[in-house]
Amino acid sequence: MTTKTLTVVRDLLASNKQAATAIRQELRSRGILGVNLLSSPGSGKTTLLEALADRFRDRYRMAVIEGDIETERDAERIRAKGVPARQITTGGACHLEARMIGKVLGDVPAEIDFLFVENVGNLVCPASYDLGEDLRLVLLSTPEGDDKPAKYPAAFLSADAFVVTKADLLPYLPFDPARATAEALAIKPALAVFTVSAVRGDGLDALTAYLVEALERLRSGRA
Amino acid sequence: MTTKTLTVVRDLLASNKQAATAIRQELRSRGILGVNLLSSPGSGKTTLLEALADRFRDRYRMAVIEGDIETERDAERIRAKGVPARQITTGGACHLEARMIGKVLGDVPAEIDFLFVENVGNLVCPASYDLGEDLRLVLLSTPEGDDKPAKYPAAFLSADAFVVTKADLLPYLPFDPARATAEALAIKPALAVFTVSAVRGDGLDALTAYLVEALERLRSGRA
Repeated sequence: MTTKTLTVVRDLLASNKQAATAIRQELRSRGILGVNLLSSPGSGKTTLLEALADRFRDRYRMAVIEGDIETERDAERIRAKGVPARQITTGGACHLEARMIGKVLGDVPAEIDFLFVENVGNLVCPASYDLGEDLRLVLLSTPEGDDKPAKYPAAFLSADAFVVTKADLLPYLPFDPARATAEALAIKPALAVFTVSAVRGDGLDALTAYLVEALERLRSGRA
Repeated sequence: MTTKTLTVVRDLLASNKQAATAIRQELRSRGILGVNLLSSPGSGKTTLLEALADRFRDRYRMAVIEGDIETERDAERIRAKGVPARQITTGGACHLEARMIGKVLGDVPAEIDFLFVENVGNLVCPASYDLGEDLRLVLLSTPEGDDKPAKYPAAFLSADAFVVTKADLLPYLPFDPARATAEALAIKPALAVFTVSAVRGDGLDALTAYLVEALERLRSGRA
């Protein structure tokens, strides 16, 4: 929430849900899988999207909507991979809302397979806001610690998949992937779990396959 | 902000300021330095407090108020160091507020030198809430990336000191301390800057000296 918000939150969530439903219908009608990425600042959302851009190149088309409080930096990194990216700067707000997505949806190319939305770096507030996505990923990087799912349960409860990032740093950290996974699954048993290193490539085949399968499910009307 | 909040934010901030002012007066009258720690989840706030507990042992008395959405884990870690700790679980709210501190202040031992408040792991929302502290530290861990100050400016603007944590991981990361520091100082030139490794001990002498100096300034009425 920004300090500028004077609307009561209950009304805000109701209208957010309406906007999200419209966005989901629009994306599905175009055969586009919407994917919302949630995590703390610096957990590797942009780096994962860069890696997916390399994996999808020549096979699938993607676009990215970047959410940040300030700066155009993340959109610039994505564009450098040849992927269309639209930056939203919230100017203080701690999460994206569906109406913000709705306003920029016209700038997103219609002929794509995946629309990734990188939320503001925040493991708390974005969990409450449906952006009209069909798939929500929560990322937790190994340096953040394996005790985080139980401390920030809403993000894990709202997600479809849990992605442990920065696996390449495991030799230098006390992070136990089994503990983090067990905690996350205790919150939401249906979570798909992936452990990746975007810089080294570990785990990206499995994550890519999961995304492609979700896209095919959407297009066959089984979403 | 929690989704349960129905008060408009402007009123909330006004009453927060009143509560914060009362807490600050109370702490100053007791000669206690209040220190509010802000950062993303997993930046090392609790680990830094554990290291300070070891440094201060037998020289200064400290207590900790821990803010988390769920779990008593951080307070348990601090108590294991022999330091009194009171856990506040916000049950969803993304930041601590002064009234939450006011409610538990009676549980904090009166005969202490430092009262540390570890805020909810969130680099956005806690920046807007004065908790009645005299000193605010913003932490950024090296794995989060050196591009974060400009992306999350409010936390850096509201802080007195900027602490780069997990310096021991620098050999494995692209983090440039000079870049992070320059960005933070561009937002707030008066920031004191420290680079520490709580697990290895680097930089803790300088940070400890800074805290002790602030305590002495408070007690001499120059705060």
